[in-house]
Amino acid sequence: MTEKKLLNRSDYKKFYSMTSRWRDNDVYGHINNVTYYSYFDSAVNQYLIENSNLDIQKSDVVGYVVHSNCNYLSPISYPELIDTGIIVIKIGNSSVTYGIGIFKSGETKVSAYGEFVHVFVNRSEKKPVPIPEKILKSLKQILI
Amino acid sequence: MTEKKLLNRSDYKKFYSMTSRWRDNDVYGHINNVTYYSYFDSAVNQYLIENSNLDIQKSDVVGYVVHSNCNYLSPISYPELIDTGIIVIKIGNSSVTYGIGIFKSGETKVSAYGEFVHVFVNRSEKKPVPIPEKILKSLKQILI
Amino acid sequence: MTEKKLLNRSDYKKFYSMTSRWRDNDVYGHINNVTYYSYFDSAVNQYLIENSNLDIQKSDVVGYVVHSNCNYLSPISYPELIDTGIIVIKIGNSSVTYGIGIFKSGETKVSAYGEFVHVFVNRSEKKPVPIPEKILKSLKQILI
Amino acid sequence: MTEKKLLNRSDYKKFYSMTSRWRDNDVYGHINNVTYYSYFDSAVNQYLIENSNLDIQKSDVVGYVVHSNCNYLSPISYPELIDTGIIVIKIGNSSVTYGIGIFKSGETKVSAYGEFVHVFVNRSEKKPVPIPEKILKSLKQILI
Repeated sequence: MTEKKLLNRSDYKKFYSMTSRWRDNDVYGHINNVTYYSYFDSAVNQYLIENSNLDIQKSDVVGYVVHSNCNYLSPISYPELIDTGIIVIKIGNSSVTYGIGIFKSGETKVSAYGEFVHVFVNRSEKKPVPIPEKILKSLKQILI
Repeated sequence: MTEKKLLNRSDYKKFYSMTSRWRDNDVYGHINNVTYYSYFDSAVNQYLIENSNLDIQKSDVVGYVVHSNCNYLSPISYPELIDTGIIVIKIGNSSVTYGIGIFKSGETKVSAYGEFVHVFVNRSEKKPVPIPEKILKSLKQILI
Repeated sequence: MTEKKLLNRSDYKKFYSMTSRWRDNDVYGHINNVTYYSYFDSAVNQYLIENSNLDIQKSDVVGYVVHSNCNYLSPISYPELIDTGIIVIKIGNSSVTYGIGIFKSGETKVSAYGEFVHVFVNRSEKKPVPIPEKILKSLKQILI
Repeated sequence: MTEKKLLNRSDYKKFYSMTSRWRDNDVYGHINNVTYYSYFDSAVNQYLIENSNLDIQKSDVVGYVVHSNCNYLSPISYPELIDTGIIVIKIGNSSVTYGIGIFKSGETKVSAYGEFVHVFVNRSEKKPVPIPEKILKSLKQILI
């Protein structure tokens, strides 16, 4: 996998502002590496919910995560606010690769960036299916 | 412990708006009971950080949680926004009891409410100490 | 609510050994207060799954948490092992109150203890229902 | 980054058995993608604590995570037990790359696998430092 280095605010197409939590900080006083993936998940799903009517409780087709990665450049600590930027890097038949950037509120350089890959599957059988039209349309709106 | 039933937005003195996370929802599709305590923690510590210069990394005196409880009245689900209300119910020599209310963004009735008790201890020896003046002053500002 | 003080290993009827996680420790170097409720949840549900065939994905009746509380007596830190003890304190028509004790592996005095209240509801309508016979039987097996 | 595909139990050198939690399952009924990184973190740090006297509270040198990735092949669900396998893939001057495999208890094929990169830094200044001798020795013991 050739990762793109999307290091600037201008590299992303949609942003979600998120609050950090006391619980996010670990022993070293910074937001724990694990927690960043929780921001990834939340941003991507919120985009799908708002832009393609994904119903995480009932939709026939749901997105399963098959890969994720994150590069950590500089720490963030609760109670700082976070801006999570997303962009679609690649659209396949059943899958989509998102680029994600984590910014301290207001900053232009990423604190962390990574990728997140969804495969769309049928909820009943968990088999990959072509990306539904409505989702595909919304993904193209933020394609790189 | 006689719990106060603080069921309305007007029962609280300070509010923090928080974003929910995909990860907060459990199998039943609602924010998991555990997660509410993470909102409690985050609201109380943010209040102390902003109003009494609590430095969670370096302050000589830190707040240890000795009791918490929560009553769950109605579910909330990601991606809904949350308003966490706080008020100080009781101030002791070393301890403080906060009342906490969790509201769906904009609603006037709590979705959940509970209590959270801090004992202030010396960071080095973990022994209870009188509440420092600056913290005491900030707690009185939101005393019931 | 009159809380029972169940402070000893011998006060509990069923135990689950659990591994702590790096992520459980907070800035103060101890398992964060929030995380204890995750142990509560896991012990109670595992008991129901193993002893009354609760299927958390498909059962008609599921347990919703309506109250929880915890008293924190002494800290535990990752990578210590945890024993979570449970006992049923009270059985109502639709609800059950569990007592939970958190022990450092092998210790006889609780590090933390609390309560956890389930109301059983119909999954489809979320309305309280009488506790199903199979669950009731399993709860009586660990009744105080 | 050329990722190694370490897909079998025999590809790993050290294993940690871990309990899953009710809270780990997400809306889709499986352990959430985020949680896997919590297993990564816990296994690696436990190895360092047990084999090189890393004191996560006081050591002069601590490991900061600069990269992580995970490939998800098949789901696991609470209350299943997890075996986390680790191996050291590469040792640099200040950094180490671990390979991590997540197995359902007793299975020989990974459910998920990935990498986790630590840079060792001085706790006071957060500057990279050569890997301390004791840690280096322990890393070489599980070098690929």
